[in-house]
Amino acid sequence: MVGVNKKKINVGMVGYKFMGKAHSHAYKDVGMFFDTAADVVMKAICGRDENGVKEAADKFGWESYETDWRKMIAREDIDFVDINAPSDAHKEITLAAIAAGKHVFCEKPLALNLADGREMLAAAEKAGVKHAICFNYRFLPAVQLAKQIIDEGRLGEIHHYRATYLQDWLVDPNTPLAWRLKKEVAGSGAHGDINAHSIDLARFLIGEFDRVVGHNRTFVKERPLLTGSAGGLSGGGASTEKGEVTVDDATGFLADFKNGAMGMFVASRFAAGRKNHNTFEIHGSKGTIRWDLEKLNELEVYFREDEPNLAGFRRILATEPSHKYAGNWWPTGHIIGYEHAFVHIVYEFIQHMTTDSPFTPTFLDGVKCQEVLEAVDLSIERGAWVSVDEV
Amino acid sequence: MVGVNKKKINVGMVGYKFMGKAHSHAYKDVGMFFDTAADVVMKAICGRDENGVKEAADKFGWESYETDWRKMIAREDIDFVDINAPSDAHKEITLAAIAAGKHVFCEKPLALNLADGREMLAAAEKAGVKHAICFNYRFLPAVQLAKQIIDEGRLGEIHHYRATYLQDWLVDPNTPLAWRLKKEVAGSGAHGDINAHSIDLARFLIGEFDRVVGHNRTFVKERPLLTGSAGGLSGGGASTEKGEVTVDDATGFLADFKNGAMGMFVASRFAAGRKNHNTFEIHGSKGTIRWDLEKLNELEVYFREDEPNLAGFRRILATEPSHKYAGNWWPTGHIIGYEHAFVHIVYEFIQHMTTDSPFTPTFLDGVKCQEVLEAVDLSIERGAWVSVDEV
Amino acid sequence: MVGVNKKKINVGMVGYKFMGKAHSHAYKDVGMFFDTAADVVMKAICGRDENGVKEAADKFGWESYETDWRKMIAREDIDFVDINAPSDAHKEITLAAIAAGKHVFCEKPLALNLADGREMLAAAEKAGVKHAICFNYRFLPAVQLAKQIIDEGRLGEIHHYRATYLQDWLVDPNTPLAWRLKKEVAGSGAHGDINAHSIDLARFLIGEFDRVVGHNRTFVKERPLLTGSAGGLSGGGASTEKGEVTVDDATGFLADFKNGAMGMFVASRFAAGRKNHNTFEIHGSKGTIRWDLEKLNELEVYFREDEPNLAGFRRILATEPSHKYAGNWWPTGHIIGYEHAFVHIVYEFIQHMTTDSPFTPTFLDGVKCQEVLEAVDLSIERGAWVSVDEV
Amino acid sequence: MVGVNKKKINVGMVGYKFMGKAHSHAYKDVGMFFDTAADVVMKAICGRDENGVKEAADKFGWESYETDWRKMIAREDIDFVDINAPSDAHKEITLAAIAAGKHVFCEKPLALNLADGREMLAAAEKAGVKHAICFNYRFLPAVQLAKQIIDEGRLGEIHHYRATYLQDWLVDPNTPLAWRLKKEVAGSGAHGDINAHSIDLARFLIGEFDRVVGHNRTFVKERPLLTGSAGGLSGGGASTEKGEVTVDDATGFLADFKNGAMGMFVASRFAAGRKNHNTFEIHGSKGTIRWDLEKLNELEVYFREDEPNLAGFRRILATEPSHKYAGNWWPTGHIIGYEHAFVHIVYEFIQHMTTDSPFTPTFLDGVKCQEVLEAVDLSIERGAWVSVDEV
Repeated sequence: MVGVNKKKINVGMVGYKFMGKAHSHAYKDVGMFFDTAADVVMKAICGRDENGVKEAADKFGWESYETDWRKMIAREDIDFVDINAPSDAHKEITLAAIAAGKHVFCEKPLALNLADGREMLAAAEKAGVKHAICFNYRFLPAVQLAKQIIDEGRLGEIHHYRATYLQDWLVDPNTPLAWRLKKEVAGSGAHGDINAHSIDLARFLIGEFDRVVGHNRTFVKERPLLTGSAGGLSGGGASTEKGEVTVDDATGFLADFKNGAMGMFVASRFAAGRKNHNTFEIHGSKGTIRWDLEKLNELEVYFREDEPNLAGFRRILATEPSHKYAGNWWPTGHIIGYEHAFVHIVYEFIQHMTTDSPFTPTFLDGVKCQEVLEAVDLSIERGAWVSVDEV
Repeated sequence: MVGVNKKKINVGMVGYKFMGKAHSHAYKDVGMFFDTAADVVMKAICGRDENGVKEAADKFGWESYETDWRKMIAREDIDFVDINAPSDAHKEITLAAIAAGKHVFCEKPLALNLADGREMLAAAEKAGVKHAICFNYRFLPAVQLAKQIIDEGRLGEIHHYRATYLQDWLVDPNTPLAWRLKKEVAGSGAHGDINAHSIDLARFLIGEFDRVVGHNRTFVKERPLLTGSAGGLSGGGASTEKGEVTVDDATGFLADFKNGAMGMFVASRFAAGRKNHNTFEIHGSKGTIRWDLEKLNELEVYFREDEPNLAGFRRILATEPSHKYAGNWWPTGHIIGYEHAFVHIVYEFIQHMTTDSPFTPTFLDGVKCQEVLEAVDLSIERGAWVSVDEV
Repeated sequence: MVGVNKKKINVGMVGYKFMGKAHSHAYKDVGMFFDTAADVVMKAICGRDENGVKEAADKFGWESYETDWRKMIAREDIDFVDINAPSDAHKEITLAAIAAGKHVFCEKPLALNLADGREMLAAAEKAGVKHAICFNYRFLPAVQLAKQIIDEGRLGEIHHYRATYLQDWLVDPNTPLAWRLKKEVAGSGAHGDINAHSIDLARFLIGEFDRVVGHNRTFVKERPLLTGSAGGLSGGGASTEKGEVTVDDATGFLADFKNGAMGMFVASRFAAGRKNHNTFEIHGSKGTIRWDLEKLNELEVYFREDEPNLAGFRRILATEPSHKYAGNWWPTGHIIGYEHAFVHIVYEFIQHMTTDSPFTPTFLDGVKCQEVLEAVDLSIERGAWVSVDEV
Repeated sequence: MVGVNKKKINVGMVGYKFMGKAHSHAYKDVGMFFDTAADVVMKAICGRDENGVKEAADKFGWESYETDWRKMIAREDIDFVDINAPSDAHKEITLAAIAAGKHVFCEKPLALNLADGREMLAAAEKAGVKHAICFNYRFLPAVQLAKQIIDEGRLGEIHHYRATYLQDWLVDPNTPLAWRLKKEVAGSGAHGDINAHSIDLARFLIGEFDRVVGHNRTFVKERPLLTGSAGGLSGGGASTEKGEVTVDDATGFLADFKNGAMGMFVASRFAAGRKNHNTFEIHGSKGTIRWDLEKLNELEVYFREDEPNLAGFRRILATEPSHKYAGNWWPTGHIIGYEHAFVHIVYEFIQHMTTDSPFTPTFLDGVKCQEVLEAVDLSIERGAWVSVDEV
């Protein structure tokens, strides 16, 4: 509720493309569906291109806009900074925001490399500001239900964890060379972009990684250069000139978890027909869980304790009032979509900043995820298993 | 885009429960995702209970509130009226709004009975105001794709149309007697509430009904009275006293369509495990289409023209830029939810009011739907087929 | 086991096309997977075309063949007669077999009409021979599990029963005029051929029909005449001449059951993409069951008694040792196919003939099914509901 | 057809448990559904336990039985030997059969280790006898369709191959120590038993492995000893004494293929709820294929060349006459089961022995599969990638 005497918390956001839209939507809607401890005020949005950012400010409902993020961070009316600019900008903006005493809500990946990420974490902890990394998929009702089932011990001891994150927007060799395909801007390809989500979900659900071994591919090594402004997943036109793809199209790896479970992960942008196939399947001594982002409201669960002739995978539609966050939306059976996860994480971070309620994922989770990513890359160089503690 | 010089259109809304929330959300979000011809301004929300409506106004983002709908309709700053109060109030408010020269966006059912619906349609046409009935499911990308496939002749001649709309919130005999279970307020039970959606989708997709024959049931004839304020699908507590259920729990019927197709419809609130199972399956001489609201982003399509050894039901994820409305949201594979359909219908109605663009469904569709509903009820009385033209 | 001192029971079979092959296979395999009380001996197969029946005898493993069924029935070494000739021959052969004191295993439909069916039932009962009608789908493990769940009261009071039996082999207007499309030979079209299966399953699972109302269509009224010998579902070539289709392509109907449940049935050979889509969905006060012949090893079950946040449709793979008949085949998860149902019904009928163990479906079930079929046809003539007791 | 003047080919079989039953069934049924070039005659079955083998002979329909396989191999009336005894017996029997000039049809794994397998292959090639290894899953219509699609280039360049073979019969720690869990008899656990199938399918579908790296687990290290005779997957009772499990419960590995594709494989007997979840998913530059043994009649296929708004995974029911082997069984939509694959491989091997028609998989495929299995085991020892050419 937007109360007259309710505390307000002002956000300034850097970035206004795909993630900028998703985050804006979350700030706009959160108060309508959740009783936040403070009203979030969409104070300022920031981007380098004045026309672009002005249009975004109008369309998304921000009170003002800036073209210089340093200026925006300096504004006294900004309580926390949301950073969803391209990945290579995360570190500098974050450190500046922390220096200015602002809380930070940063898109993943935290940084281009582990050292940078650790520096950001240390700075945030030293400054005592609140910090979050936007691993949004943790906040879907079906994923929360998976977490609850596991935490209650209903899967028993975990034996297997398998994840895929599959897309197909690069199978076409004419898809242009967007910033996500350049190592110096994106840091990594499918691995850092989407394996990162799978790694975070695995850590969230079953715990820490012990060691990994992987392989990767860049199936199409040159692509048309992009003309004009580049945002979104693949926006902008294609030039006749070509440039080198410097990130991976696909990375797969095996993992051993500290709890003894066997893991298997693959991220690819070359999986024809798989549009956003972020899945996990977890086998425990008492049952199995399966989830797929393309059907994000559903969780498949098998319990060995069910009567033998009646046991089977249950397709649970996580839209009941008893499912976390679901009751804030619509009646049973009225499904939610992709963007709702951002509303939920924003809700939890507002609560965290306002009431000091427990919150994860923080920069620490960003760092832990980065450790696994880099251990995989190191294992690829070495052709052998690498302990995550080593990186 | 919210432009400085852009035309504005002001909405006043009666109702603030389940549908009030869904409509408010649509007004709030539409400008962010669609280039509307006018900016919609959430001017006033109206409800009888001052505390309730005030809280809704705050939470949903309305500029003001009223407790008397006559007063709201009279306001000069209201351009169109959105009516989502309980069904028995639709007629009176609609007629008053039309009399005041306002456009009207009315929730379904249009009225408690056909005569009232026809009166509302006549009034709207005479006054020359724009009018819409909120058959929201037409506006989902997958349903639009179904429409396109049929209109392009890719299903050929239509042979069969089958629809279900199944929920289970009444299977529990202790679910209390909400207003939706009282004939004098709701007009009808599962039939008017959810068969109405199926009938509208059938008309939208394959055309007019010729004749029908049906049966119905009220499986649980008495339910606990509801204590306190009653909104949403089942909100409020249960009393120890009981009252009579005066509407149907389930209604099924056969239909012959004017184009020769055979139809089969069932609506039930007694279908254990089916939460919002609004489905259709359409067989034509060239192929088949199947859709299910619980997986609203997907359309299953079978084409007989596919090579015989490669033909199969295709699961199309209607999240591509080429799918109507989908491109306004997120990249491919990032699914949308239930409420998005309201954003789409609101977008189309704003365009219609502002630019006179073509628009359906109007009150005429509300009346046509009501004709089928009443023909079914008449067939139940008679135990025989009834021509829809007869009612 | 084929024991040295084990009783033997000799079968003589009339018919050698699609059903003849399925039955032959059952006799051949039953002893390998089931401990029958008697060894079935494939004594003689009978058909009018000597070359055809001789080839079938060799290929299917029959000891001898006959071209005159009267002669075969007269043979002393025949203990029971299996009749799977075209439907118009069922009555005469059955009556002759009964007259000769043989047990009879008859394919469905029992007869071309109800009067004939009743005559056959009366004759069998009077003679005291064992009689069976081959409603094979009752004998699938998943269907047996559905039956068990219902009989144990785990679905509670039954509210809804919906069935489809959909195929698409007639959508092509050039599919020739096989015997199944001629009323004088087949008796009926989709209605008698496949609605019959659905009606039998409904009776098996939830009990007797009270009243019905239906509609039907013959979408393609003329088809190429068939050249050469006609067997199987559509075998034989197409002539350039056309003949009239005298049966229904599709029949749908509503039903009220004696237990108060609402029913809905549709059979069609015009459902593009549906190859053998024999399905039922049953809603009770405690749960729901769904089954589909195209996935015949699976049963979907929803129990309302499951914890609210963990309830969901269970996909049960009916291949566990605890599932009836499944343990006689392969280990868990190794699915069975269409023809296995025939092995199971043959097993049960052998037991019935040998040990007088309880057995259904008998001719009585054939008659009961025919009553419903004819009541539907009568309702179509009348355009009104017809009580099944009336026919 | 069983023709009077048709060539006959006599089989002698060693083994009569799970696989013995499946093979017997294939010999019994093949002539009924396929026009084999020779009639297979079930001449003799062999097992050490006279009562057991005698009962099997009777039940399965063998003309005679032997308790000494050497004696059976020596019989002049045996044309080929089928070996499905436990894995540790394969080598000796095979070599003896070859020495006697018999053709050999051997169950997988070919041998307990690569050296033995190579010896068997060399012996068979030197002797010029026909040899086969029973990788039965190649012979399912849906798998054949996958092969055809790939061979026709309709998937384009292959990027990814992922396979699972998951079962759950060992999750229960009280499942006894069957022979499949002892290294000296089985050679290997899940890896050799079920990864072997996945490896063979991958080789069949997309070609040779280049290098691999894996990990494995024995989750339950001790199990109750088995009492009595041990056959089938888990047959026999459990003792109170325990013994050590000396094989893997699960093995996963990454693979690089020679064609550049990335591979990922996991076999586990600890995947709760997965009964026989033998799956593959193959992504190519033009499309994707997915298959699951639990739904063995279905193939899911995605073609990028489909119109963008109509592209989607097709669920193809491989029961059309145009699908290899399917037309030999039942009409469209009437699914087949697990054992049918054995009928098909037996059919092809009979043709191969009789007419010298092309045939795979032979012992060479057994050896190639074993190479991959051993390379994985070696990679586990080393903690690093191992080239398959190295073993």
